[in-house]
Amino acid sequence: MAVSSAIPKTMKAAYLVGTRQVEVREVPVPEPSPDDALIRVEAVGVCGSDVHYYEHGRIGRYVVDGPLILGHEASGVVVAVGANVKHLRPGQRVAIEPGVTCGRCDFCKSGRYNLCPHVRFLATPPVDGAFAQYIAHRADFVHPIPDDMSYEQAAMVEPFSVALHAIRRSGMRPGDRVAIAGMGPVGLFTVVAARRLGAGDVVVSDTVEKRLQLALQLGATEAVHAKRGAIADAVRERFPDGVDVAIETAGHPDAVASLLPALRRGGRLVVVGLSQSPLKELDLTQLTDGEIEIAGVFRYANTYPAGIQLMREIDVWDLITDTFPLAEAGDALERARTNKSESIKVVVYPQA
Amino acid sequence: MAVSSAIPKTMKAAYLVGTRQVEVREVPVPEPSPDDALIRVEAVGVCGSDVHYYEHGRIGRYVVDGPLILGHEASGVVVAVGANVKHLRPGQRVAIEPGVTCGRCDFCKSGRYNLCPHVRFLATPPVDGAFAQYIAHRADFVHPIPDDMSYEQAAMVEPFSVALHAIRRSGMRPGDRVAIAGMGPVGLFTVVAARRLGAGDVVVSDTVEKRLQLALQLGATEAVHAKRGAIADAVRERFPDGVDVAIETAGHPDAVASLLPALRRGGRLVVVGLSQSPLKELDLTQLTDGEIEIAGVFRYANTYPAGIQLMREIDVWDLITDTFPLAEAGDALERARTNKSESIKVVVYPQA
Amino acid sequence: MAVSSAIPKTMKAAYLVGTRQVEVREVPVPEPSPDDALIRVEAVGVCGSDVHYYEHGRIGRYVVDGPLILGHEASGVVVAVGANVKHLRPGQRVAIEPGVTCGRCDFCKSGRYNLCPHVRFLATPPVDGAFAQYIAHRADFVHPIPDDMSYEQAAMVEPFSVALHAIRRSGMRPGDRVAIAGMGPVGLFTVVAARRLGAGDVVVSDTVEKRLQLALQLGATEAVHAKRGAIADAVRERFPDGVDVAIETAGHPDAVASLLPALRRGGRLVVVGLSQSPLKELDLTQLTDGEIEIAGVFRYANTYPAGIQLMREIDVWDLITDTFPLAEAGDALERARTNKSESIKVVVYPQA
Amino acid sequence: MAVSSAIPKTMKAAYLVGTRQVEVREVPVPEPSPDDALIRVEAVGVCGSDVHYYEHGRIGRYVVDGPLILGHEASGVVVAVGANVKHLRPGQRVAIEPGVTCGRCDFCKSGRYNLCPHVRFLATPPVDGAFAQYIAHRADFVHPIPDDMSYEQAAMVEPFSVALHAIRRSGMRPGDRVAIAGMGPVGLFTVVAARRLGAGDVVVSDTVEKRLQLALQLGATEAVHAKRGAIADAVRERFPDGVDVAIETAGHPDAVASLLPALRRGGRLVVVGLSQSPLKELDLTQLTDGEIEIAGVFRYANTYPAGIQLMREIDVWDLITDTFPLAEAGDALERARTNKSESIKVVVYPQA
Repeated sequence: MAVSSAIPKTMKAAYLVGTRQVEVREVPVPEPSPDDALIRVEAVGVCGSDVHYYEHGRIGRYVVDGPLILGHEASGVVVAVGANVKHLRPGQRVAIEPGVTCGRCDFCKSGRYNLCPHVRFLATPPVDGAFAQYIAHRADFVHPIPDDMSYEQAAMVEPFSVALHAIRRSGMRPGDRVAIAGMGPVGLFTVVAARRLGAGDVVVSDTVEKRLQLALQLGATEAVHAKRGAIADAVRERFPDGVDVAIETAGHPDAVASLLPALRRGGRLVVVGLSQSPLKELDLTQLTDGEIEIAGVFRYANTYPAGIQLMREIDVWDLITDTFPLAEAGDALERARTNKSESIKVVVYPQA
Repeated sequence: MAVSSAIPKTMKAAYLVGTRQVEVREVPVPEPSPDDALIRVEAVGVCGSDVHYYEHGRIGRYVVDGPLILGHEASGVVVAVGANVKHLRPGQRVAIEPGVTCGRCDFCKSGRYNLCPHVRFLATPPVDGAFAQYIAHRADFVHPIPDDMSYEQAAMVEPFSVALHAIRRSGMRPGDRVAIAGMGPVGLFTVVAARRLGAGDVVVSDTVEKRLQLALQLGATEAVHAKRGAIADAVRERFPDGVDVAIETAGHPDAVASLLPALRRGGRLVVVGLSQSPLKELDLTQLTDGEIEIAGVFRYANTYPAGIQLMREIDVWDLITDTFPLAEAGDALERARTNKSESIKVVVYPQA
Repeated sequence: MAVSSAIPKTMKAAYLVGTRQVEVREVPVPEPSPDDALIRVEAVGVCGSDVHYYEHGRIGRYVVDGPLILGHEASGVVVAVGANVKHLRPGQRVAIEPGVTCGRCDFCKSGRYNLCPHVRFLATPPVDGAFAQYIAHRADFVHPIPDDMSYEQAAMVEPFSVALHAIRRSGMRPGDRVAIAGMGPVGLFTVVAARRLGAGDVVVSDTVEKRLQLALQLGATEAVHAKRGAIADAVRERFPDGVDVAIETAGHPDAVASLLPALRRGGRLVVVGLSQSPLKELDLTQLTDGEIEIAGVFRYANTYPAGIQLMREIDVWDLITDTFPLAEAGDALERARTNKSESIKVVVYPQA
Repeated sequence: MAVSSAIPKTMKAAYLVGTRQVEVREVPVPEPSPDDALIRVEAVGVCGSDVHYYEHGRIGRYVVDGPLILGHEASGVVVAVGANVKHLRPGQRVAIEPGVTCGRCDFCKSGRYNLCPHVRFLATPPVDGAFAQYIAHRADFVHPIPDDMSYEQAAMVEPFSVALHAIRRSGMRPGDRVAIAGMGPVGLFTVVAARRLGAGDVVVSDTVEKRLQLALQLGATEAVHAKRGAIADAVRERFPDGVDVAIETAGHPDAVASLLPALRRGGRLVVVGLSQSPLKELDLTQLTDGEIEIAGVFRYANTYPAGIQLMREIDVWDLITDTFPLAEAGDALERARTNKSESIKVVVYPQA
């Protein structure tokens, strides 16, 4: 095992120990296996799923039933690598792809490893996450970053990957018109990805004014306040034929429903957000008559190298509104939970 | 204009003149324009849409508001061609592709001419169809057939095209497991197309025993009586992971709903049938978690050359249960309307 | 026919009348057919093919055998439309897509209209081009442009379309590494398109220093002087695995040969340039062992709407080095022919 | 480790020990690792690459420099599984996919594991193959077969996989016209696969009369003796526009050269055969003007489940001409080497 000089025996890690209860504990630094890298974690974004576990203790079939370290949008620096690891060395700055897959099932072998039933994903019970000073992670899911990329940028490759995968699954072509519902971090990164990959007009909607303004700043060409009008109406007003691509990132059936009438014949709707309830009505006449397509998106696959390349040109400080040291990880989660009109992305620094 | 010897001045054609009222009239043989072929019609299949106009006088936004010739699954022999027509000559036996598109809109130019808003489709008001002795049709939608192909086969290229297009849009790969709901002619042809293009197991459902038996004969590997059990249960019993592809041809929201739980993660549902009412509930958790895709199908594009090639190996008499001369076109429609437990495909012979 | 006020009876047009001989003549303004728009031409780029006809009188099977108007990269303003034209009106500013296709052959119907054998393409014998004050053109190949787009930008949508089509056929994915040989206008626009559509690193080569500098300015990340070193060596030095995509725009077998060794396993080479001689050696071991793909590109299809959208953000004055009035069209061609170390794109103004 | 009753301590295996020298030795039965299955080998096909190592001791960069067990087209029955293996149990009949890949490189993760640089492929130096009574193999590359499938069929899934992958990479669509050069086992299986997956006409060529007859029996629609005429001429005679897809399986630059002129505009050539020398001339004008594509094929990926499904309908005894017990493995290789006018596929039985 190649090791850099000074790895301590113990470290601090922030555990979710009960509903809205976070406790920082001193625990042993993990031992990397021969296929792992040991990483000193430098920046970790707070995701909506972290907040959901913090508040509700579960997401669908995933139930927190013991102390759990949250956080899966992480970057850091390699401090040791296992015997089998060739492409990394101590000292290397990296982005961490949080889902470790089996590499052997049909999904993994056919390029859709995000559907691997054996995946172990950071901060998804019972797998601990990255609100910790060190983490051991299988090295093939640890990606070197350029020297001029910040740890915050590297951490943001994770939510940006969701956006890249959504755009890819949307089949978006150069010049396409795009409508996006929900301007949380994933929605905003989807605006960035859509524009960066050749979208023409991008119409967005949300209920928070600040997020709409930010979307316009990031490249959206029209922003609709979802409480004051439907995105489909705004689309049809400017583009009577509708949009080529619609992307739902809000995680609500109403947002899905609001986008369908915005679609052009031959258009495609991608659903990224995790809705708690079903869509109440799907117009099968529009579906068949217009050859509409609807596609779900689950996490991402094969996005990190591209995500890192494209992240070089993105100013993540447009989205990062709040920062906390690890000792205040609970405050970070509470901020993200309560301050939705002002906070966009909250970042935790494990070494601060 | 190249003309074969004996084209009469008038011909017989069967007009829908009121609800379930068909009248055979003597009318002028149409004049082909410079881009048209004039075809002596030899065989015409009765489609579900013909029956629907016959019974209800409308399908959605298409309303019959005057005498209309039905029939769009047609074949025949060229008797004259317009001055601009190069690839056809009098005497040539042909299959007629019924939708004539503009060739100039974005949909036409990008290979999706089935979505052309300017299409003129036989037997769709106000465009007359093929229950007539002669028809003039733009020559680029008139396809020569091999000498050893029957007129009945050539007419069946039309519903077979729907099946081919559905399979294509399903993204079916060799060896895929497929579930198909609805064993009317389109469903049965979809069984044929799926098997012919490399499907592995094919599970089907319908409520009519005879149709299930026919499906098995045509290559389905399991048939489920839709009143006695759900297709998804039958699928899961044999294939716990579900099917790769599901295709709805029944035209009912319940059939759509019955197929969704049969889908594997990463699976794809294609909706071909025209439902009169919406789907009442779409599980967005399955959609996102499983990266499910749902795609509507509207008619077909670019299927005729392939359809004719593949039709050479298909025995259409497995599906054709009833035949009528043009004089009895009304009886043909009535048979198709009332005899769903026994009749599959009804064919009308305009020259008989 | 809808007509704007003042269309003259005659106009000036620049005819190629012999090898390197251009003559401006006064000829009748063309009459638009019912499907045409009549356009007052405002800007026309000089293409390498124009220069080739000017110098050699032929390109392959296309031979100039009478006076011919050159120029096919054109924009202008609609002054009249035929009776069937709905989407244009006099006064509208437009980009002209120069190839008018039949809309009825298999290629047209399947979305690859650039392969239509019946195409009539401006400035390709015997079809006259756009070095004229007015042109009649089938309206579905006349594309409105935004108010804030210049005529020079609109004219440049034509060479940019070649670049877009090349990128599309390259299968380039976000973050891909790209090598491009030949930094003429098409090569430079390919740099722009690659970067705009998500390329990671872009390595380019040419023999003209000024063009390499311009490529770097437009987004290339490394420029190789083709006389001083091979592009494949430069690629392998920075990226030992090679590039994902290589694009040849120089029109020379040596450039094709120089790119092949730069390809990664699974990589794809697109050949855009028109070479006068064959490639002398193709390594079949690399081809099979590496699953390499090689794809030719011929003009473009379905690029104009996207090209216009993306052109909004492109400063074409980076490429336009020389401008001439129509009266000096011969000088424009001569400049393009002789001044390759300094001139990039030459533009002719028919109304000046 | 789950074990069936009677695994011996030693087994027989046939080693290549020098040029055209094979020796059967008694060696220890291999120990399966926790991820492996131990398989009693029942049938092994002789591949052209086996014959090449037997005769020349090397293929390109792969050099035999010690005793090596040949054979990689293998089937058998599981007799033991390692502790981590869930989907197999002793007694299960299986087909063996011979290339074991890393599952962790970019190629593996993106679905192209055939390009994995870390692959260990049976009978490719220094990895031993399957001319042995037992073999230990990573269980995720061991595929259960149906009860009614013979071991010979299961072994033939390997060369059939090459054909399936070639068809997939050819982009063949239903009804396409296909030309295939080289009617060895891979060429013949490509005929089967093309027809089974919807090809229209299939024109083939070879220099051996018996192979051409067999191709016609397996579904080819025209067979051309390569010494008596060019396949492109035969194609153009029947189909003046050319074929949509051409596939080279002969492994000779002349065969590649013979197919290119057979291609339709927009057509695609797939090169499967391993040529020892380069193609001497590639017409770049045809390539660009016709938007031709040329794609190499290396082995296969994700073909086994489909291959097993489709193999159920294939009579492999059409291709298997010779069988030998393991004790005569040298004779089997010699037969394959010398008897090309009569032998198609030679099979070795390790338990006989």
